[in-house]
Amino acid sequence: MTIGTSEAIEILGTISFAISGSFAAMQKRLDPFGVLIIAFVTSIGGGTVRDLLLGDTPVAWMRDVNYCLLILLTSIATIFFKRHIKKFKVTLFLFDSLGLGLFTMLGLQKGIVFGLSPGICVALGTITGCFGGIIRDTLLNTIPLIFRKEVYATACIMGGILYFSLVHFQMKSDLAKVAVIAFIFTLRVIVVRYKLSLPKFGY
Amino acid sequence: MTIGTSEAIEILGTISFAISGSFAAMQKRLDPFGVLIIAFVTSIGGGTVRDLLLGDTPVAWMRDVNYCLLILLTSIATIFFKRHIKKFKVTLFLFDSLGLGLFTMLGLQKGIVFGLSPGICVALGTITGCFGGIIRDTLLNTIPLIFRKEVYATACIMGGILYFSLVHFQMKSDLAKVAVIAFIFTLRVIVVRYKLSLPKFGY
Amino acid sequence: MTIGTSEAIEILGTISFAISGSFAAMQKRLDPFGVLIIAFVTSIGGGTVRDLLLGDTPVAWMRDVNYCLLILLTSIATIFFKRHIKKFKVTLFLFDSLGLGLFTMLGLQKGIVFGLSPGICVALGTITGCFGGIIRDTLLNTIPLIFRKEVYATACIMGGILYFSLVHFQMKSDLAKVAVIAFIFTLRVIVVRYKLSLPKFGY
Repeated sequence: MTIGTSEAIEILGTISFAISGSFAAMQKRLDPFGVLIIAFVTSIGGGTVRDLLLGDTPVAWMRDVNYCLLILLTSIATIFFKRHIKKFKVTLFLFDSLGLGLFTMLGLQKGIVFGLSPGICVALGTITGCFGGIIRDTLLNTIPLIFRKEVYATACIMGGILYFSLVHFQMKSDLAKVAVIAFIFTLRVIVVRYKLSLPKFGY
Repeated sequence: MTIGTSEAIEILGTISFAISGSFAAMQKRLDPFGVLIIAFVTSIGGGTVRDLLLGDTPVAWMRDVNYCLLILLTSIATIFFKRHIKKFKVTLFLFDSLGLGLFTMLGLQKGIVFGLSPGICVALGTITGCFGGIIRDTLLNTIPLIFRKEVYATACIMGGILYFSLVHFQMKSDLAKVAVIAFIFTLRVIVVRYKLSLPKFGY
Repeated sequence: MTIGTSEAIEILGTISFAISGSFAAMQKRLDPFGVLIIAFVTSIGGGTVRDLLLGDTPVAWMRDVNYCLLILLTSIATIFFKRHIKKFKVTLFLFDSLGLGLFTMLGLQKGIVFGLSPGICVALGTITGCFGGIIRDTLLNTIPLIFRKEVYATACIMGGILYFSLVHFQMKSDLAKVAVIAFIFTLRVIVVRYKLSLPKFGY
């Protein structure tokens, strides 16, 4: 059995989100099982909310135990090698951004398969990309980073709009997907590198 | 195509909840996309939880993109005209209470269509009316106002009981609906105007 | 009509979780309806999340109004007799642990009925046992105790693994269930009695 590009990136995305969740949980000094649960929730949160909203149940992670094993192993590895991995903070951020791009694309695609309108597909992609992090931060009792910091959901929404534009102008679907993932990834890197953010409100 | 009374009030309710969500998010100094997401969640949260619990998926807002557009436009308008709208704080509160009444009635009615028992219908109405605000406050990291302040869920529960009482005593269904919406609306106004609240607990 | 062992313990579990939710809400000084809602959420949260993930809707508590009535009565009783019940803190903890054991077993069993793999069944049991408390603590704006304190989800996971081990070694299913419930219950009591906990992380 060979693994396709899509599966390969999904696996990388799952690993990245599991690592990000593990780190967030360890910073809040949770015990190992708390860390495991937060890693799990961060990795499968987005896809679970997507499948619940669509009524595509049992949700994805219940039908394929391999993703659960992958998250478990990633989480355990993060706990044991945390000093080592910490040095790769930049690598982590890059994987997280790649995961965001791919999960957004997967959600968007699933919306199209379900025959929903483009605006709803963009929303579904954004939910798939972002919701794992929202649930993680809510459980850890902080205002979700998505609402606080640099462009995050915005990158997903812009990526979704880009996808429909590219397809509208006859770009091949597979090429458009890779372009969108690259776009979201690059946008995140530029935004974080140059500390860009949308204007905030004050009274 | 003409718009019925029910649709008209649902549109007003959606707008009101979107405005209330936008204001709450701006007070927490979120960026424009954070404001948009909170407005969206506040408006569609109650109906989404209702549809998920019933298994009526894809959930309502996925099937009708117009509500998403309505929330988007309302949220943008609130951001740009916030100084102007701020003066209409009382108007906002009135719309919010009207929305609470209607959304409660819509949830109750959907429970009846699904053949659930009266007690469950009342719970479903209360969830539809209140859950948008609960999710909003949870995401913004405050104890939901519903648990803190004046009568809120209580108004929905009492309204639900009133509906079944009126129908039991042979009142026409449409008339009973309007009466319940007016009841919840009026109760909220009286409670907030005279700062009434249920007794709290202390040790 | 006679009540089986399983129903009897489910009723006890529901009562225990309702009491635990009521106490948590009263400590946060919520009004009576806030207390009722938190009690309700604590009692039905785990089963609701389980049924949503499985797509078994309308969720359980909507199909049987008796559990709602049971929670309502328990909550009201807790409010009125709170001084009296407070003395039975140990009793409460014991019931809570019993409830945890049983709800875990119920979730596990439902996963088996749905033909899911053992690992997923253990996850489903853990979710059923723990999620009521997670939602309760999230709504009350504290980091869920499950992530903070002594072994909690861990007990559910170990109980789930024990069940499949016992069944693998030909133990009768009914006997294995009782053994698992007793195991989770006993583990919780020992852990809390001797203040055991998993090691935490610090930098």
